[in-house]
Amino acid sequence: MKVLITGFEPFGGEKINPALEAVKKLDDEIAGAKIIKAEIPTVFRKSIEELEKIIEREKPDITICVGQAGGRFDITIERVAINIDDARIPDNEGNQPIDEPIFLDGLNAYFAKLPIKAMVKELRENKIPASVSNSAGTFVCNHIMYGLLYLIDKKYPAMRGGFIHVPFIPEQVIDKRNTPSMSLDNITKGIGLAIKAAIENKEDIKEKGGKIC
Amino acid sequence: MKVLITGFEPFGGEKINPALEAVKKLDDEIAGAKIIKAEIPTVFRKSIEELEKIIEREKPDITICVGQAGGRFDITIERVAINIDDARIPDNEGNQPIDEPIFLDGLNAYFAKLPIKAMVKELRENKIPASVSNSAGTFVCNHIMYGLLYLIDKKYPAMRGGFIHVPFIPEQVIDKRNTPSMSLDNITKGIGLAIKAAIENKEDIKEKGGKIC
Amino acid sequence: MKVLITGFEPFGGEKINPALEAVKKLDDEIAGAKIIKAEIPTVFRKSIEELEKIIEREKPDITICVGQAGGRFDITIERVAINIDDARIPDNEGNQPIDEPIFLDGLNAYFAKLPIKAMVKELRENKIPASVSNSAGTFVCNHIMYGLLYLIDKKYPAMRGGFIHVPFIPEQVIDKRNTPSMSLDNITKGIGLAIKAAIENKEDIKEKGGKIC
Amino acid sequence: MKVLITGFEPFGGEKINPALEAVKKLDDEIAGAKIIKAEIPTVFRKSIEELEKIIEREKPDITICVGQAGGRFDITIERVAINIDDARIPDNEGNQPIDEPIFLDGLNAYFAKLPIKAMVKELRENKIPASVSNSAGTFVCNHIMYGLLYLIDKKYPAMRGGFIHVPFIPEQVIDKRNTPSMSLDNITKGIGLAIKAAIENKEDIKEKGGKIC
Repeated sequence: MKVLITGFEPFGGEKINPALEAVKKLDDEIAGAKIIKAEIPTVFRKSIEELEKIIEREKPDITICVGQAGGRFDITIERVAINIDDARIPDNEGNQPIDEPIFLDGLNAYFAKLPIKAMVKELRENKIPASVSNSAGTFVCNHIMYGLLYLIDKKYPAMRGGFIHVPFIPEQVIDKRNTPSMSLDNITKGIGLAIKAAIENKEDIKEKGGKIC
Repeated sequence: MKVLITGFEPFGGEKINPALEAVKKLDDEIAGAKIIKAEIPTVFRKSIEELEKIIEREKPDITICVGQAGGRFDITIERVAINIDDARIPDNEGNQPIDEPIFLDGLNAYFAKLPIKAMVKELRENKIPASVSNSAGTFVCNHIMYGLLYLIDKKYPAMRGGFIHVPFIPEQVIDKRNTPSMSLDNITKGIGLAIKAAIENKEDIKEKGGKIC
Repeated sequence: MKVLITGFEPFGGEKINPALEAVKKLDDEIAGAKIIKAEIPTVFRKSIEELEKIIEREKPDITICVGQAGGRFDITIERVAINIDDARIPDNEGNQPIDEPIFLDGLNAYFAKLPIKAMVKELRENKIPASVSNSAGTFVCNHIMYGLLYLIDKKYPAMRGGFIHVPFIPEQVIDKRNTPSMSLDNITKGIGLAIKAAIENKEDIKEKGGKIC
Repeated sequence: MKVLITGFEPFGGEKINPALEAVKKLDDEIAGAKIIKAEIPTVFRKSIEELEKIIEREKPDITICVGQAGGRFDITIERVAINIDDARIPDNEGNQPIDEPIFLDGLNAYFAKLPIKAMVKELRENKIPASVSNSAGTFVCNHIMYGLLYLIDKKYPAMRGGFIHVPFIPEQVIDKRNTPSMSLDNITKGIGLAIKAAIENKEDIKEKGGKIC
């Protein structure tokens, strides 16, 4: 089995992206699967084009994109991507789409093709704070997650995939008051466990994990 | 023009629901439109059935459901409802569905049929903190929003509609540490302004208001 | 009985100070006592000098200074002022003392001469979120509270006094993400109730209200 | 040089205390000084009595007590301890004093006899989030800090000392929503750096680090 795991380049004024740093530190083999690592530009459109090239070349069984969710307290497994770009800040090439659909022929939303509850459970049982998230935002993270699931829907129906958001690491919050962080070691461990759970669970488990709002 | 506005009954151990209290206090006419107010049970399925009965009877031009988002800092206009029920706590009749679709023949998600950016702008210009939210959760609030938009899609294509989440009011946070609230007066004023903006803007405005994550 | 109540002028880039706005709106008589209102400059030293002049002129029985605590969720009755100025930002005349004592002949700290638990209880029973705070910071708010209690200790032993911190009001948080606020009406009501409790309770009540950290 | 460093036993329903776990993992020698480690009961009075016995036996040059500050985002070096016990929950032997002085012959407050700004700077320069705190609460943490500084004042004038608060570690927040944590490795590293800075700075540095409120 082959798993493609991607991390975004830094954005929004940050010097590093913990998602990318953690992806780089992952083992090259997890639960018997070969791990392919890639860096993706934090740019609308181009990120999906890059992703598609790598998928076309590598033909992974599972693709998981990882991004930074500054301000979140734990590792979040995203449930759904929506067909909208709505950028609060410009991306790394200055694009700032507002309320535009990502693909005109795409569904309003795609649900992750991943066992999100099993992944959360695996992390929590290993002492890594984690939960299901019901929104990946409306910036490039949601954009690539939507793009990935659109590609699965249209071209790679056998592939599974989804998105993971990770918190800031401590060095990023030195000058940010009351902002949570997680150590790079724990983020790396968490992503590894999530990959393991994705490999080992073809079907998701039935487990509480919803949000009231 | 006729606007139907609904509020949920209290849930989750709360004695009151600020959404319902605010709905009751709304003027009977806003921006020239007649305002019809209704209380909806915080119960999966039954909430949608009740809503449909009222819509069938009243034939409103716009329907907006309002719910409590305990822990949020401002009034949020919801952008999208997803086709999933995932209850962290039981509803008011003890139902607790986990990861079940709301309608098997529904889309993965429906976008609000409301000028969400114009509504946010109207509130903010009138000194009421407000923003767009990209998740209504996975409890009864998302459920009714999805149900409303499903009904619009399937049966009432001329109707517009969506969902507004409101914070706790001060009396609800007396014993909750570090939990934000908004006065009932401001919530009521905010909902009124949101209705006004929905009436006055057939099309939404192009305005920043996305979230990075 | 005469109660002097002061509010600071705006600082830190804010256009208004909710403490001052609320003080201005207070009734001129509360619980049978005459209420004297005054504005105090948000300036080290000068604030205490101004306060002393007013105390000398008005001879109040109780003096309560009120300040803005941006980011706090509720109205906080301060327990203690410490003998240190440590300014993170300059005051309104550009002074920025770092780790300097306020009065060389003052105690390390003074406890409020107010029934702080009775005041908190009065607010909470009237549905206004409130709690005891154990730090008034190290800026001009702590400075004036310390100055007031120093004056009580050295010159006006019959006077009682202390400090109240109030949250932002909604219009101040329109552009601040995830920042709590309280309506000006509720802040005004809360300060009035606190004054009433201070007048009616010569001794404090024994009531839980400490903080673990 | 000899440094005594203490950690509290778990309290408040927690199974572990990150302060104690980190203290145990410290090196036995830091910056040339011998490190003596001790566990202190989370009990009013008894904690100070235990501390005094160890100080009497070990005659340390510096004593630093460490405690858990659940809910804080970073490592905080405490500036001041106040002469009050006000317990929101019972201590580990069921004591719950409310608004009682710790020592009748003690000052209202004692400032830490530590270079708090230099300690914060040392941590931040090494990528560990840290700040000065102006309140150690009113539970056993403030109690032991006050007791330590009282002992310095009355019996051990040559000794220096103070208190450090540390956040929850990740495994403690698995079931706590939106609660920050810090890895045990980073907490341990941070305490070690704080000790180093305390040893190397007899006088504190002049550095911004105050709080507005």
